[in-house]
Amino acid sequence: MSDSEETIFSLIIAGKIPSHKVFENEYVYAFLDINPLSRGHTLVIPKESAATMDVLSASSAASLGQCLPKICRGIMKITGAKNYNLIQNNGEAAGQTVHHLHFHIIPHYPDSEHSFVWVPQSIDHLDAAELSKAIYDELN
Amino acid sequence: MSDSEETIFSLIIAGKIPSHKVFENEYVYAFLDINPLSRGHTLVIPKESAATMDVLSASSAASLGQCLPKICRGIMKITGAKNYNLIQNNGEAAGQTVHHLHFHIIPHYPDSEHSFVWVPQSIDHLDAAELSKAIYDELN
Repeated sequence: MSDSEETIFSLIIAGKIPSHKVFENEYVYAFLDINPLSRGHTLVIPKESAATMDVLSASSAASLGQCLPKICRGIMKITGAKNYNLIQNNGEAAGQTVHHLHFHIIPHYPDSEHSFVWVPQSIDHLDAAELSKAIYDELN
Repeated sequence: MSDSEETIFSLIIAGKIPSHKVFENEYVYAFLDINPLSRGHTLVIPKESAATMDVLSASSAASLGQCLPKICRGIMKITGAKNYNLIQNNGEAAGQTVHHLHFHIIPHYPDSEHSFVWVPQSIDHLDAAELSKAIYDELN
């Protein structure tokens, strides 16, 4: 995705589409999801128009990370929720619908229905040793 | 949670419990989940022993955010996955089992079974206008 590609989120950042904004600084914009899973469901996006986490610049990623605790505190304080999930989907097969990176912050209330289908496996330690070494070597 | 409280993750960071490490720097540690949803399922944690995102320091959050694109690229390159999910659960009711903040990076393959139960609602714009203003005012 090029920096100039428009999505509904780049139009929101530009103020061309209205949003229920909860936070903005030089690098980050946050607003209520228009199809919330729960009250206070918020989207936090970088102003950089990266489609997925792996193509986001390190500086935008640092700014995005830095804002998350503060935004979570604000949402929890105002909604009264005590528990919450952060979800960030990359690629259509993984559930991404807007091609501009976004973190969902989803307050969880006693009557919340959102959940995960979590089917853990047991790790194959031999494969894991090789795999982790390969990723480690790639990253270092 | 105090900084001195031990969890299985603080023991992993300290090297007292072995792990399949994929990345480490001064602030961040990443390793393969021992009960993976898919091959390459990785946990990325701050060395700061914060239980949830809302209590993580801004500096650790920035470091954590900054590492995410790089770690995602490494996992995708080595596993060959093209799609992936990041999940970070806060509080037991939201699915958190270890009380040390952790991002799951979960590669999604064509045969992956993990998914979300996603039941979106339509936003109540009147309530959303009040709610977003209250959060915005809290954060600014």
